[in-house]
Amino acid sequence: MGMKIITQIRQMQAESNKLRHQGKKIGFVPTMGALHEGHLSLIRQARLENDVVVMSIFVNPIQFGPEEDYQTYPRDFSRDEELAKDGGVEIIFYPAVEEMYPQELLTFVNVERLTDGLCGKFRPDHFRGVTTVVAKLFNIVKPHRTYFGQKDYQQAVVIKHMIEDLNFDIELVIVPIVRDSDGLALSSRNTYLSQKERASALVLSKSLQQAKELLDSGERHSKNVISRMNDLIKGEKLARVQYIEIVDSQTLEPVEIVEKEVLIALAVIIGKTRLIDNMVLKYN
Amino acid sequence: MGMKIITQIRQMQAESNKLRHQGKKIGFVPTMGALHEGHLSLIRQARLENDVVVMSIFVNPIQFGPEEDYQTYPRDFSRDEELAKDGGVEIIFYPAVEEMYPQELLTFVNVERLTDGLCGKFRPDHFRGVTTVVAKLFNIVKPHRTYFGQKDYQQAVVIKHMIEDLNFDIELVIVPIVRDSDGLALSSRNTYLSQKERASALVLSKSLQQAKELLDSGERHSKNVISRMNDLIKGEKLARVQYIEIVDSQTLEPVEIVEKEVLIALAVIIGKTRLIDNMVLKYN
Repeated sequence: MGMKIITQIRQMQAESNKLRHQGKKIGFVPTMGALHEGHLSLIRQARLENDVVVMSIFVNPIQFGPEEDYQTYPRDFSRDEELAKDGGVEIIFYPAVEEMYPQELLTFVNVERLTDGLCGKFRPDHFRGVTTVVAKLFNIVKPHRTYFGQKDYQQAVVIKHMIEDLNFDIELVIVPIVRDSDGLALSSRNTYLSQKERASALVLSKSLQQAKELLDSGERHSKNVISRMNDLIKGEKLARVQYIEIVDSQTLEPVEIVEKEVLIALAVIIGKTRLIDNMVLKYN
Repeated sequence: MGMKIITQIRQMQAESNKLRHQGKKIGFVPTMGALHEGHLSLIRQARLENDVVVMSIFVNPIQFGPEEDYQTYPRDFSRDEELAKDGGVEIIFYPAVEEMYPQELLTFVNVERLTDGLCGKFRPDHFRGVTTVVAKLFNIVKPHRTYFGQKDYQQAVVIKHMIEDLNFDIELVIVPIVRDSDGLALSSRNTYLSQKERASALVLSKSLQQAKELLDSGERHSKNVISRMNDLIKGEKLARVQYIEIVDSQTLEPVEIVEKEVLIALAVIIGKTRLIDNMVLKYN
C-alpha cells in the first residue's frame, strides 16, 4: 500500500482502530518534522518491531516559550514526506494546529519534579506542553510502542513516567543519539547554524568526550568534571553555557559523586541557537 | 459467562484488548462502590448501549482532601458485588490502592477554570484527583462509552472537557439524578445521616424546587433566587450552606440574569455530612 497522509483526528483514530482490529502492531514516532537521520533511526527501529509505522508531524505551539522559535522552526513537509516514504512509514499523521487545539485548551498533563531541573529550569512550560500533546497523540494514534530519541533524554524520562503513572498501554523505546561524523548530535535546529557556528557547536560533544575521559581515568567528583567542561566551552567564543549537569539517570536528581548510572547533560547557546547534548555513563 | 472480578491493571487491559478485538463495545461505569440506585441507573443505561459493561470500584485517595472522609467512606464489596451482578455488570475492576499508585505519583491531569468554582472552591485538589484517576481508568478499561451521574454535574463537565482536550476516543453519557420518593438525591454519603439529619437533608431538593417555581413564575435575577434558597435553608437548624450558585451550564461561569440553560447547584453541610444537589433549567 502507498503511504497515507491523515490530517483529521477522527480519521486517524478510525484507522488505528481498524489496524488494531486486524491484529496489527502499531509503532509510533512523534516528530515536529524537519526530519534528519535521528528521526530515520527511530523509524527504522519502529519498523523492526511493529507491523505498521505511524509518524506524526506537528510543530506543537504549546511547548514553545514566548521568546522561543515556534514561528521560525524549520518546516518542509514535502521533503519530510519523501524521507518518511523512503524510510517505510505507512501513515503520516499531519494535523493542523486548529485540528489539535479547536477550543481553548483547559486540560494539561503535567509531570512534576522530573521537569524541574535541566531544560525544565530554562523552559518553564515546555514539558507540560510536551506531555499534554503526547497524551493527545497517544489517544489519537493508539500505538503499541512509541519511539523517542535519547537526544532529548529528559523528555524521554518524563514521557516514561507519564506512561507509567497514567497507565498508557504503550511500550516506550528510547533510541540512541545519532551524530554527524565529527560528533555533532543531529538536531532539526542545526539548520539555524552558520558555518562558523557549526564548527563551534562541536564543543558540546567534545566536552562530553572530555568528561568521559576524566571519569574513565578515575575522577568521581561531578564538580570537577563540570568545571573542566565549563573551561572547555569558555574557550569557544560563540558558545555560552546554559547548564551543565550530572544527574542520576532515573530520578534526574544532581549527584555529587559519580557512582552509578548518571546522565551528563548540557545546553549551550551558539550564537542565537540553543543546542543540547548528553551522555549516559555507568561507573561503580 | 459469570461476572469477572479483575484486580490487576495488566489483566484488565488484556481483557479489554480481547473484547475490542472481538468487536465488542465496552461501556464503563467508574464508581467508588457503596452502590445505590443512582449507580444502578448508570449500569442500566450502559447495558442498553454496549455489549459489555465494566464497572470499576475504587475509593481514590487522591481526590479526598486531608480533612475529608477518605478513611470513613463506606466500603462493602460483597454487597456491591451482588448488586453489580444482579444489574448485569460483566466485569468489576477492583484494584488495590498499591495497584493504582505503585510509585510516587508525579503525573497529574488538570482541567483549569472549570474546576475553580462550585465544589472546586471548597475542595482544592479534588478535581485534579478525579481527572487523574479517570484518565488512568480510561487507559486501563479502554471503553467506547463512559457513564457519569448528573448528581456530580461539575465533575461531568470537567470530564467532558478532559475527553475533548486530550482526544480520548470515548463517548461521555450523563445520566439524570436518581432521587428517593421524598426528593433526596441518592448519594453514598447519605448513609452518614442520622434520622433527624436525613429529614433536614430534604432542604436541598426543596430549595431547588423553590428556585424552579420562582423562575417558572418569571423571576430572572439569580441574586433573588439564591437569596430565597438561602432563606429556606437557614430555617433548617442542622443545615449550613457551603455554596449556592447559578451558573452557565456549559462554562460554569456565574450568571446574573437567567436567560439560557443554567445550572443551579448547591452544597450544604448537614451535621458533619457534606451533601450536594443540582438542577439544570432552560429559560429564554
